[in-house]
Amino acid sequence: VGVVGAGQLARMLAEAASPLGIDVAVLAATADDGATGVASEVVIGRPDERAALRKLAGSCDVLTLDHELVDVDALDDLVREGVTLRPSTSALAFAQRKDFQRAELHRRGVPVPRFALADSDAENLVRRQTDQWGAVPVVKAAAGGYDGRGVVVTQDLAEALEAARRFAHSGPVVLEEPLTLRGELAIQVVTGPDGDARWWPLVRTSPDDGMCAEVRYPAAVDEQIRVEALDVAQRTASVVQAVGVLAIELFWTDDGILVNEVATRPHNSAHWTIEGCVTSQFQNHLRAVLGLPLGSTEPVAPAAVMVNVVGSEAPVDLAAALAVDHAHVHLYGKAPRPGRKLGHVTALGSTVEEAAVRAWRAAEALGTALRRPQS
Amino acid sequence: VGVVGAGQLARMLAEAASPLGIDVAVLAATADDGATGVASEVVIGRPDERAALRKLAGSCDVLTLDHELVDVDALDDLVREGVTLRPSTSALAFAQRKDFQRAELHRRGVPVPRFALADSDAENLVRRQTDQWGAVPVVKAAAGGYDGRGVVVTQDLAEALEAARRFAHSGPVVLEEPLTLRGELAIQVVTGPDGDARWWPLVRTSPDDGMCAEVRYPAAVDEQIRVEALDVAQRTASVVQAVGVLAIELFWTDDGILVNEVATRPHNSAHWTIEGCVTSQFQNHLRAVLGLPLGSTEPVAPAAVMVNVVGSEAPVDLAAALAVDHAHVHLYGKAPRPGRKLGHVTALGSTVEEAAVRAWRAAEALGTALRRPQS
Repeated sequence: VGVVGAGQLARMLAEAASPLGIDVAVLAATADDGATGVASEVVIGRPDERAALRKLAGSCDVLTLDHELVDVDALDDLVREGVTLRPSTSALAFAQRKDFQRAELHRRGVPVPRFALADSDAENLVRRQTDQWGAVPVVKAAAGGYDGRGVVVTQDLAEALEAARRFAHSGPVVLEEPLTLRGELAIQVVTGPDGDARWWPLVRTSPDDGMCAEVRYPAAVDEQIRVEALDVAQRTASVVQAVGVLAIELFWTDDGILVNEVATRPHNSAHWTIEGCVTSQFQNHLRAVLGLPLGSTEPVAPAAVMVNVVGSEAPVDLAAALAVDHAHVHLYGKAPRPGRKLGHVTALGSTVEEAAVRAWRAAEALGTALRRPQS
Repeated sequence: VGVVGAGQLARMLAEAASPLGIDVAVLAATADDGATGVASEVVIGRPDERAALRKLAGSCDVLTLDHELVDVDALDDLVREGVTLRPSTSALAFAQRKDFQRAELHRRGVPVPRFALADSDAENLVRRQTDQWGAVPVVKAAAGGYDGRGVVVTQDLAEALEAARRFAHSGPVVLEEPLTLRGELAIQVVTGPDGDARWWPLVRTSPDDGMCAEVRYPAAVDEQIRVEALDVAQRTASVVQAVGVLAIELFWTDDGILVNEVATRPHNSAHWTIEGCVTSQFQNHLRAVLGLPLGSTEPVAPAAVMVNVVGSEAPVDLAAALAVDHAHVHLYGKAPRPGRKLGHVTALGSTVEEAAVRAWRAAEALGTALRRPQS
């Protein structure tokens, strides 16, 4: 399998591939990227360089991706040359372009936040939508954002105008009605080329300052919300049609469940499946893109909590983290730097609270900058 | 961590190291060895080459081993030069030399099969012991054997004499009284440099034609046998004094528990701990040799069964194996060849029987030459 990208997702794909005897080649920007130490082969190049992509594809049965910041035209050219790309560029478009995703899901009847798209004159649209919604809109860059970057949530019109102006330099801008959330949820599905699909269970995600801080299984929601979330997710999956892992982030509001974002690749919200489920999102993504039978997505414990480790001024004390029994430490091999995602910790437990205590204790030993959400 | 050797054990050490952000360098005989694709660094050389060992040690905090076929003098020289080697060469001697192991454990009061050592004139000793024991002895080469090689079990005096003559060419020969076994058991412990130790649970191992075919947790034995096995194992561990994983293979006879063999490294009898326990033997071996806190060795399921995949004339059908839900497939990246250990499968279950059915079904899909033992 060839992976466009060599960050932590490619690294965890390589970790999942090795036990199956599957070789993973990665396209890395530099020889120091997270996955280069564990991949069987490393091609150095940019993800929009046709020569580098061709070299990567040359040694692989199938190409997949660990991020969305890719050049669709270059990938389409490769597919025309006979390369198997999974997911397809049409599925990838949902993850890559928030304007397309919002418009297409809305057109197909999937509930999304109220939105407006600006191809030009984004500032004017900010003013108009502020009047219409009676609130300053959330401003999002249509492409290129991740981990809270490319999104500005504010009640201050001047700040929203500034963000709209800034994002408009690099493409369309999405404006959304600000929502009062009861919480955020996520769910993931893996789909094979034959359409066979397996769903992991619904989880609760908690952000801190725009980044995912914690993921909890099971999500503490009413049965009615669970059913609605599954229904919205299933409809989303049937629109996106992605081979491999599809992660669906959901807003839980007083008016029901809305789609926040989708990712057509393994996703932070399912890192807990490495230890928490019979088959992890990484192994099932590999199985799916290779057309192999999918593995069981059943959880192996009553509860699991994943906490991200984001660099701070505090040191990364691996020994202290490993001293927390039942915590599973994942470090991505990156030099610590404030604000940088360095790893994650997953802990299983007989209750969510037990798992959360373990996971946060280990993540704090690793110096995470994130704060435990009030639940 | 530097690993002398680059076979499947080094490969699984590297797989366990990656999530912790620990780099693994391996000393490989060839660039095609099992672990070269996943190790962060590969040094090509023989395990008795001082220059190669020095190069490996140069980039690592600590050296460890994935096999015993090493040159103790070369390792001792490295230690004198300041290299940290774990386990020590004195612990390694128990795994490397069956004559020393038998004599030393016996001297320290640990029960072992009745034995006799021949430094010279092994054939004469075979005749003498046959008379004394009233049965043809089991003939073992003192060093260099593995997976049933270097051991001849026969009731035929001529065959025993031939084996003794052959093994005597390469060193001392160990003769043992043949035993009637009720079964074979194994247990593993990991010990840190500070003496902190954690035991995995007792397992039942079943050989087929001298090779380990199946490992079952829990071992179906009386409480009395379990207590005796733990006692013998604890006494063995306190004699061997190995930092890292120590695997102890036991004979279960009508006269009680005897030590069969010891290995001062991760061992086939504990591959099931990768999915079956909170912390695998591979991760705990790394933690131990690096002086990091040890992880919990608790099982995560009521039952687990591991089955080895040994090459046969049948094809390796990965898709068919992955179609067996709850089976965890491990392939070591080796070209299939009859008689070659290609991988293993572990399945968890609510009962041993359920786990065994899953594991054997997947191993048979992978074409294992081994037959399911009658239990």
